[in-house]
Amino acid sequence: MFEKGQLQMKLNRILPLVAVAALAPSLGLAQDAEAAAPAVSEEVVWIFNSLLFLIGGFLVFFMAAGFAMLEGGLVRSKNVTMQMTKNIALFSLAAIMYWLIGYNLMYPLGDWAIEGYFSGLFPSWGVLEPVGVALADADDPSYASTGSDFIFQLMFCAATASIVSGALAERIKLWPFLIFVMVLTGFIYPLTASWQWGGGWLSEAGFSDFAGSTVVHACGAAAALAGAIVLGPRLGKYKDGKINPMPGSNLALATLGTFILWLGWFGFNGGSQLAMGSAGDVADVSRIFSNTNMAASAGAIAALVLTQVMYGKPDLTMVLNGALAGLVSITAEPLAPSLGLAMIIGAVGGVIVVLTVPLLDKLKIDDVVGAIPVHGFAGIWGTFAVVLTGTSTVGAQVLGMVAIIGATFILSLVFWFILKAVIGIRVSEEAEMNGLDVAELGMEAYPDFTKG
Amino acid sequence: MFEKGQLQMKLNRILPLVAVAALAPSLGLAQDAEAAAPAVSEEVVWIFNSLLFLIGGFLVFFMAAGFAMLEGGLVRSKNVTMQMTKNIALFSLAAIMYWLIGYNLMYPLGDWAIEGYFSGLFPSWGVLEPVGVALADADDPSYASTGSDFIFQLMFCAATASIVSGALAERIKLWPFLIFVMVLTGFIYPLTASWQWGGGWLSEAGFSDFAGSTVVHACGAAAALAGAIVLGPRLGKYKDGKINPMPGSNLALATLGTFILWLGWFGFNGGSQLAMGSAGDVADVSRIFSNTNMAASAGAIAALVLTQVMYGKPDLTMVLNGALAGLVSITAEPLAPSLGLAMIIGAVGGVIVVLTVPLLDKLKIDDVVGAIPVHGFAGIWGTFAVVLTGTSTVGAQVLGMVAIIGATFILSLVFWFILKAVIGIRVSEEAEMNGLDVAELGMEAYPDFTKG
Amino acid sequence: MFEKGQLQMKLNRILPLVAVAALAPSLGLAQDAEAAAPAVSEEVVWIFNSLLFLIGGFLVFFMAAGFAMLEGGLVRSKNVTMQMTKNIALFSLAAIMYWLIGYNLMYPLGDWAIEGYFSGLFPSWGVLEPVGVALADADDPSYASTGSDFIFQLMFCAATASIVSGALAERIKLWPFLIFVMVLTGFIYPLTASWQWGGGWLSEAGFSDFAGSTVVHACGAAAALAGAIVLGPRLGKYKDGKINPMPGSNLALATLGTFILWLGWFGFNGGSQLAMGSAGDVADVSRIFSNTNMAASAGAIAALVLTQVMYGKPDLTMVLNGALAGLVSITAEPLAPSLGLAMIIGAVGGVIVVLTVPLLDKLKIDDVVGAIPVHGFAGIWGTFAVVLTGTSTVGAQVLGMVAIIGATFILSLVFWFILKAVIGIRVSEEAEMNGLDVAELGMEAYPDFTKG
Repeated sequence: MFEKGQLQMKLNRILPLVAVAALAPSLGLAQDAEAAAPAVSEEVVWIFNSLLFLIGGFLVFFMAAGFAMLEGGLVRSKNVTMQMTKNIALFSLAAIMYWLIGYNLMYPLGDWAIEGYFSGLFPSWGVLEPVGVALADADDPSYASTGSDFIFQLMFCAATASIVSGALAERIKLWPFLIFVMVLTGFIYPLTASWQWGGGWLSEAGFSDFAGSTVVHACGAAAALAGAIVLGPRLGKYKDGKINPMPGSNLALATLGTFILWLGWFGFNGGSQLAMGSAGDVADVSRIFSNTNMAASAGAIAALVLTQVMYGKPDLTMVLNGALAGLVSITAEPLAPSLGLAMIIGAVGGVIVVLTVPLLDKLKIDDVVGAIPVHGFAGIWGTFAVVLTGTSTVGAQVLGMVAIIGATFILSLVFWFILKAVIGIRVSEEAEMNGLDVAELGMEAYPDFTKG
Repeated sequence: MFEKGQLQMKLNRILPLVAVAALAPSLGLAQDAEAAAPAVSEEVVWIFNSLLFLIGGFLVFFMAAGFAMLEGGLVRSKNVTMQMTKNIALFSLAAIMYWLIGYNLMYPLGDWAIEGYFSGLFPSWGVLEPVGVALADADDPSYASTGSDFIFQLMFCAATASIVSGALAERIKLWPFLIFVMVLTGFIYPLTASWQWGGGWLSEAGFSDFAGSTVVHACGAAAALAGAIVLGPRLGKYKDGKINPMPGSNLALATLGTFILWLGWFGFNGGSQLAMGSAGDVADVSRIFSNTNMAASAGAIAALVLTQVMYGKPDLTMVLNGALAGLVSITAEPLAPSLGLAMIIGAVGGVIVVLTVPLLDKLKIDDVVGAIPVHGFAGIWGTFAVVLTGTSTVGAQVLGMVAIIGATFILSLVFWFILKAVIGIRVSEEAEMNGLDVAELGMEAYPDFTKG
Repeated sequence: MFEKGQLQMKLNRILPLVAVAALAPSLGLAQDAEAAAPAVSEEVVWIFNSLLFLIGGFLVFFMAAGFAMLEGGLVRSKNVTMQMTKNIALFSLAAIMYWLIGYNLMYPLGDWAIEGYFSGLFPSWGVLEPVGVALADADDPSYASTGSDFIFQLMFCAATASIVSGALAERIKLWPFLIFVMVLTGFIYPLTASWQWGGGWLSEAGFSDFAGSTVVHACGAAAALAGAIVLGPRLGKYKDGKINPMPGSNLALATLGTFILWLGWFGFNGGSQLAMGSAGDVADVSRIFSNTNMAASAGAIAALVLTQVMYGKPDLTMVLNGALAGLVSITAEPLAPSLGLAMIIGAVGGVIVVLTVPLLDKLKIDDVVGAIPVHGFAGIWGTFAVVLTGTSTVGAQVLGMVAIIGATFILSLVFWFILKAVIGIRVSEEAEMNGLDVAELGMEAYPDFTKG
C-alpha cells in the first residue's frame, strides 16, 4: 500500500530535482554553476541516510547499557544481578519480537514488504534487502537501506521496554516481566507507534512527535504505570503513613548510565531526522544535536537548583533524572526550537521530575528509578511543547497523547492483570526481603562487599 | 607484489565503471539518466570507505574497555587492579607491536609498503600516507586511506590479546603475560591472519571468515587454551573432585563490559565489509548490523532459557557469555544469512557456551571468564556455519580452522613453556591467596569496601 | 569581520577548484577523466565536514562521562556522590554558558553572527542556521553547518572545566566550584581560546596548537592549579613532613574512565582536522587517529615501565594517567608526526606524569587525580613537541603557552581569591572528615558497602 519512506513523511523531497540537476551539463545549463553541478547524487544521498541510521542505531543501542547502569545503580545491591538479567534479556527479546512481528505490524505491508516476507529462511522472516543490492532494486531508492531502517527502528522499540524495567524493579518476577516485554515489543508498541510513524490515523490527524516523547517515552511510562499499579509497592516502602527511602546502591553507576543515555540520545533524536544527504538535512541534524544537548543540560541544572531550594541540598538522583527529563522533553520537537527555547523546554522537564517524584509516592505508586516522571510526565510536557514552535496544535497533541498513552495503559493493565492471575508476577515476601539475586538467581552482584 | 585492497577481496569492483559513468554526459548518454549520473565519484567512495574504518576503528577500540570491564567484573575483588593493569597494558603493547612488526608481516609488502617502510622517523616505521595526500597519490585509490585501514586492523589484533587475559586471570604474573602479548600481537596473530586476510594460501584455498570467528576469536582462544594448560588452574578451583565456584566480584561491571563489546561488534563486523561507498555496500553494512544484533540477542536468550531449564535458575554470567557467543558465532559470516538464520546461528552459540563451560571444568582447565568457550568453541561453530549460507565448503572451513587454531595453539604452547622455564609465569601461592593486587601491585581496587 | 571557517585556517581551500571541475564536462575537458569528474561537490564536502563535527561532538561529549568515572574512581568512596554531582553539573553549566556568552566571545562577530544574534527566542540567543537551510544560505558554505561547529566547540569548552573538577576534589564546596565553572566556560576559556582559534593575535604570531594541548588542556590545568593553591591540600594529606596516600575507591571505574577518555580523544583530535570532504582530509583524520592511539599507548607503557623501575611495582593509576598524558601530548600536533615520532611524544608524556606527580606533592599542591601533571605538564611538553615536526618555532610556542597559561592562571587565581573571600570555597573540617557526600548532600554513593 505505502512505501515506508513516504509514510515517515520526512523524506527528502528534493531528490528528483537533484537527479535532474545531474543531467544539467548536457542540457546546456553549464553556464549556471549552481544549477549545473549535481549537488548530491541519489546514491550518495542514500548512503548518507543509511549511514545516519547506522550511527543512530549503535548510539541508541548503547542506551540499553545506559538503562541497565542507571537502574543497576538505583536499586539496592541485593537486586543488581536481577536488574542486569532483566535488562539484557529485555533488549534481546525486543530484538527478536520486533523482527518477528513488530516491524511489519508497525509499517503496513507494501509490495516490497510482502515480497520480503517470504524470502528469508522461513516465511515472513526476511525483511532485509538482498546482499549487494543495486540502488534501483532497493526497497526505497529515495530513503535508506531497509537494514539500516530496521536496526534504527528496533532500538526505539527496545527503549520502550527498558523504561518499564526500572519502574518495576526489586519485586517483579523475571519471567512474567519478560513475557510482558514480548507483548509490549511485539504488539503494543508497534501498534500504537504505527498510528503515528506507520502512516496511520494520528499522523493524518496532525499529531506531531518528532522522535517519540509520546510514541516511545510516554508509551513506555504508561506500560510501567500499569505494571506498578498491578504489582504494588515494595515491602516497607510506604509504612505507617511514611515514605521510606530505599537508596540506590551505586550512584557512580547511575551517573554513568545517565551519561550513556545522554550520548545515545544524540542518535535517538538526530537519527530521527531520517535524512542526512543534503545541506539542509545535515544542518537539521546539527540543530537537533545542539538542542538535545541544551535541553539535557537545562534539565539537570533546573533539578539541581530546585532541589537545593526545596530541600537545602542538591539531590544527585534528581539531577540525573532532570537531565533525562530534559532529554525526553525535547524529543517531541528537537529541530524547530531555538537554543533558548530548547533550554526552557528542558528546564521545565527537570522541574516536572522534581515535583512529580514525590507525587507518585503520595499515591503509593512505587517507581524505583523515577521512570514514570521522567519518561511519562516529561514526555507529556514535551509533546505539548511542540505547540510552542507552531508545528502542531494543542488539539492534535492532546489527541495523540490520549490515544497512545491511553491505549498503551489499558492494554498493559489488562495484560498485567492476566499475568498476575495466571502465573503471578510478584516474588515471595521472603525473596523480596533477602533480595532477588540470591532468592531467584542464586548469584550476588557484589559478593565480596559486606552489606550494610 | 599485491596491493592490500585487492588482497582483501572485498573491493568495490564497480568503481572503474563509476569513473566512466562520470564522463557520460559529455559522451552523449545524457538521455539515459541512470547511465549518465555519476553515482558516486571515486573520491567520495574513498572517503566513505575510510570513514567506515574510522567509525569501525573507534567502536572496536572501545571493545578493549569492554573486555576490561567484563574481566574486571568476573574476577574476585582482590585481583581487579591487576586485571585492569593487564588490559590497558596489553592494548598498548598490541598497538606498538602491530605497528612495529605485525601490520607489515600480515600484509605482504607491495610497492607502496616498501616505500612507506623507509619514510618515517626510523626505517620501517612509516606506514601512513603523507599529510594531505591527493587521491591519485594514495596507496590504493580504490580502497581507503592507509591510516584508516591501519587503525581498524590494529584493533582486531588487540582484541585477540584481550581474549587471552580473561582466561588466565587471577594467577599469571604481569610481565610474562605481557611478553606473551607482544609475541602474539607482533608475530603469531599477524602470521596466521596473513594466511587469510593477507592474501595468503588459506584465502586461495577457499576458506571464508568474514570478520574473524577463527582468525581473531578462535585464534585468541587457542592462545588462551595453551596458556591455561601450561599455567594450571587457580588454587582451590578443583579440589577433592569438586569444582569450587569463585564468583565474580562485580556483575554490574561485567554486564557493562558485555554491552560495550556488543556495541563494538557493530564496528567489528560492519567495518569488515571494508567498503561503504555504494548502495550495495552500505546496504550490506546494514544487513551486517542487523544480523550481528540478532545473533547476540539469540545467544543471550538461548543461554537464559537453557540455564533456566538445566539449573532451575537463569545464570547471568551465562547470559552475558551467551550474548558474546552469539556475536562470535555470526562473525564468520554476518552478511549472507537472513535474520532467521542469524538467530539460529547465534542461539546455537549461546547453547554451546552453556554446555562447554562445565566441560572445560571437567578437564580441569581453568578459564576464569569463559573465554575459551565463547571465543573458541562458538568461533568454531560460527566458522562451520558459513557453510549454511553456501559461501564456503566444510572442507575449506575445516582446513582454515585446523591451520589457524592449530598453528596458534602450538606456537603459543611452545612459547608459554619457554616463558615458564625461563622466567616463570605464575605468582607465588601466597600472592595468589592474598590477591595479586596487594601482593604484586600494592594497590587495592576497592580499598574502602570490606572484603567478604 | 571574519567568517569562522576562514579564521580556523584549516579550511579546504581546494573547494573552489572542485566547483570549477564540476563544470568540466561542458567545457570540453571530458577527454581528461581526472579533470572532468567532479570529485566531491561542494554540498557533499559540507555534509562530510558537518558529519565529522557531529561524530567528533558525540565522542568528545562522552569524555564528560570519562572524566566523571576517572575522578569518581580516584576519590574516596565518601566523596563519590559529590564528584558525580560536580561533573554532571559542570558539563551542563558549560553547555549553557558557552552558548550564552562563550561561543560568540570566542569567534569575533561576523555578519552572520550578528544576524543570528538577534534571531532566536531572545536577543543574542540564536546561533544556529534556520531549519532546512540551503547550502547557498548557510553561514559558511565552504565549511560546515553552524550547529555542528557549535556542538563540537562546546565540548572542548566543557572539557576544560572537567579538568578542574578532578584536581580540586574532596574538599571544595559545590556552589563556589560551579560559579567558577561558569566564569571559566563563559569567559576565561573563550577569551584565551579566541586568541588562537578565534583568529586572534596568537594565531597570527605563528603559535600552533592543533587540537588544544595548551588551549584546552594546559588552560584547564592552569585554572586547576590556581584553585589548588587557593584551596589548599586535603586534611592530613601532608602531615609531619610525610605525604599520606589517599587511595582511590574504585580503580575499575577509573580504568573505565580512562578508556572512555581515550575513545573520546579520537573525536577530540580527529574532529579538529575540521574537514573530511576530500581524500587528503579523510587521510589526515586517519593519520590523526593512528597517531593519537599510538601516543596514548606509548604513554601507558612508559608509565608502566618507569613505575616498575622506580618503585619495583607497576602503578595502575600512573599507567592510566600515562595514557592520558600521551593523549594530551599528541594533541598539539597529532597530524604531522610519523607513528614513530608520535610514540616518542606520547612516551615522554607518560614519563613526565610519573616524575611530576611526586613533585607537586613536594610543593604541597594537592591534585587529587593528577590533572595538573596530565593536562598541564604533558600539555606543555606537547606544545613544545610541535617544533619537532617543523610546524612551528620554539619562540611562537613559548609565546602561546605563556599567554594562555599565564592569563588563565592569573584570571583564575584572582577569581578563586574573590570566591574565597566572598563566600568561601572550602567545606568545614568536619564535613571533609565525614565525607562531602553525607555532609553536603546527605546521600552516599555506595550505601550498601561497609567502609574500611
